Amino acid sequence: MFATGAVPIRPDVPGADAHGIYGADTLKIAIELNKILDRKECKRAVIVGGGYIGLEMAEALTLRGLSVCLIEQAAEVMNTLDSDMGALVSEALEEAGVKLYRQESFKNFDVRDNRVRAVITDRREIPSDIVILGLGVRPNTCLAKQAGIPLGVKDGVKVNDRMQTRVENIWAAGDCVESFHLVSKRPFYVALGTVANKQGRVAGINIGGGDATFPGVVGTAISKICEVGVSRTGLQAKEIEQLGLDYVSTVIKSKTRAGYYPSAEDITVKILAEKSSGRLLGGQIVGKDDAAKRIDILATALHAGFAVQEMIHLDLSYAPPFSPVWDPVLIAVRQAMKKI
Amino acid sequence: MFATGAVPIRPDVPGADAHGIYGADTLKIAIELNKILDRKECKRAVIVGGGYIGLEMAEALTLRGLSVCLIEQAAEVMNTLDSDMGALVSEALEEAGVKLYRQESFKNFDVRDNRVRAVITDRREIPSDIVILGLGVRPNTCLAKQAGIPLGVKDGVKVNDRMQTRVENIWAAGDCVESFHLVSKRPFYVALGTVANKQGRVAGINIGGGDATFPGVVGTAISKICEVGVSRTGLQAKEIEQLGLDYVSTVIKSKTRAGYYPSAEDITVKILAEKSSGRLLGGQIVGKDDAAKRIDILATALHAGFAVQEMIHLDLSYAPPFSPVWDPVLIAVRQAMKKI
Repeated sequence: MFATGAVPIRPDVPGADAHGIYGADTLKIAIELNKILDRKECKRAVIVGGGYIGLEMAEALTLRGLSVCLIEQAAEVMNTLDSDMGALVSEALEEAGVKLYRQESFKNFDVRDNRVRAVITDRREIPSDIVILGLGVRPNTCLAKQAGIPLGVKDGVKVNDRMQTRVENIWAAGDCVESFHLVSKRPFYVALGTVANKQGRVAGINIGGGDATFPGVVGTAISKICEVGVSRTGLQAKEIEQLGLDYVSTVIKSKTRAGYYPSAEDITVKILAEKSSGRLLGGQIVGKDDAAKRIDILATALHAGFAVQEMIHLDLSYAPPFSPVWDPVLIAVRQAMKKI
Repeated sequence: MFATGAVPIRPDVPGADAHGIYGADTLKIAIELNKILDRKECKRAVIVGGGYIGLEMAEALTLRGLSVCLIEQAAEVMNTLDSDMGALVSEALEEAGVKLYRQESFKNFDVRDNRVRAVITDRREIPSDIVILGLGVRPNTCLAKQAGIPLGVKDGVKVNDRMQTRVENIWAAGDCVESFHLVSKRPFYVALGTVANKQGRVAGINIGGGDATFPGVVGTAISKICEVGVSRTGLQAKEIEQLGLDYVSTVIKSKTRAGYYPSAEDITVKILAEKSSGRLLGGQIVGKDDAAKRIDILATALHAGFAVQEMIHLDLSYAPPFSPVWDPVLIAVRQAMKKI
């Protein structure tokens, strides 16, 4: 049974192993990082990469009182969202005091006496006492590869829906395997605790002589960055374009509760649907409090294969403390319907 | 077009129109009630009926400093929930300081000088300066009945899925019509703003020459009572029994966020599923903050006709600020699966 997880991607440049450069990938490293921050000697942090880990670390270090810069190659942070939605996350980060350098590429480190002094991008040099790498992860499948187990997308171990590898009696689950995307109907790689947990359960049942299957994922993810919750499911615009599908998209702004209710907060919902059929392809939500958790409605609808014209009458819950009369998700669905 | 709404049920006893007895059904009455409470002459309130309106008024009057008693005929308040879940709502009310008289029937009023002095039940007399009636509503269809428009369940106007009545060129929508229940596949009456709003849109489109349909409801409702959110969808146990279906049910307790995350609150989820097929029949949720809004996952699954064994791998969102690794809804689904 391969349950070897994933390893963080480290840049292949000189000095990448110098003191002061951290991957934030193991408990041991987190404890070490915590001790160093407690000494209050680090003043300036640079985060390389604006994905989930990079953003969560940017928030954490800002809260610890450091001056934080974040470098992101793309137009906006959180590139698993479309850039119009990612822009809302960039805004939240800047409001929290993080200095963002977008559309800027990491080049290498300025290291002296085996300690990092600065991060060098294609546009500037940023002095730093501490650097956090948030460049994503890759499946930890060196051993599987050496053993001749067939690998798939991003070198994740190929498995069937019972979590069997292509080699008899060898199983695999978690961040080290290739998954199947139920919306694109294609192999897919995702490293998430919730998926790993479900796959592990299925592998365990089957290894123990039972019979369970893991059909795949719809690409759901959620994160909290500063005060803002961010979630996504299904395919984002660039993924849909790669599949060559014609699609419509709509973005609406609404409130998490009835407008007149205390603590009603802004929520922005994006819906992507196939142009002719209206089939839901994906959704993205940004908003305070638990707003982003509404993504589960869209995730469930993706599992059902619903078109937006079927979703318009979803009997979602409404009372003023919980939602406007039309749930923001349904407002977005209704707008998308007008475009198909 | 009949859009005549619903009227609150008033008890057919002498003195029911006396001063101090309110239905809390119109804005005018609410404003009057507010003025009276501002005078601070009322000290003791009695609420008759433990449904949504009764409970929300019990909370509101308690917050205004009145001593509040509530009379409920059933074993627990909120009888659209099964009594094991309703008990959690009863608890929340009692914690907020409401005195509950359960399994007790309203008989009549003690009225002197055309002003209510007490509420009399089958077990006691409860002195009161003010009485709120929360006995539910009935469709306001006197006019429709006189006009010979066919009525259905609870005298709601019978309509097709285009919101046409059985009489040509006559339409109806909202709290005055009979709806269709997509889980029981039977006519159903429900008076809720969200349903009325959707039906009104469909009627309007069709009257205007367009073509839209309203397929029906799955019985979703949500409310906030004191600190606790309460929601339900689909069929409750007694409705399933009335249909003669064999079913399993499971209740789980979990947390709204990762257990170690600040402000993780208790959440209780109940799932009801058909015994042989595993088809989801209903769900109920009680919990603080936005916990109860998770009912939308189950409502969407009911629209899809999912069985619990299909739901187990729903790709729901997880990050510590939003959920345990297994969403509480999925924990309940997993437990239900073991019983089918």
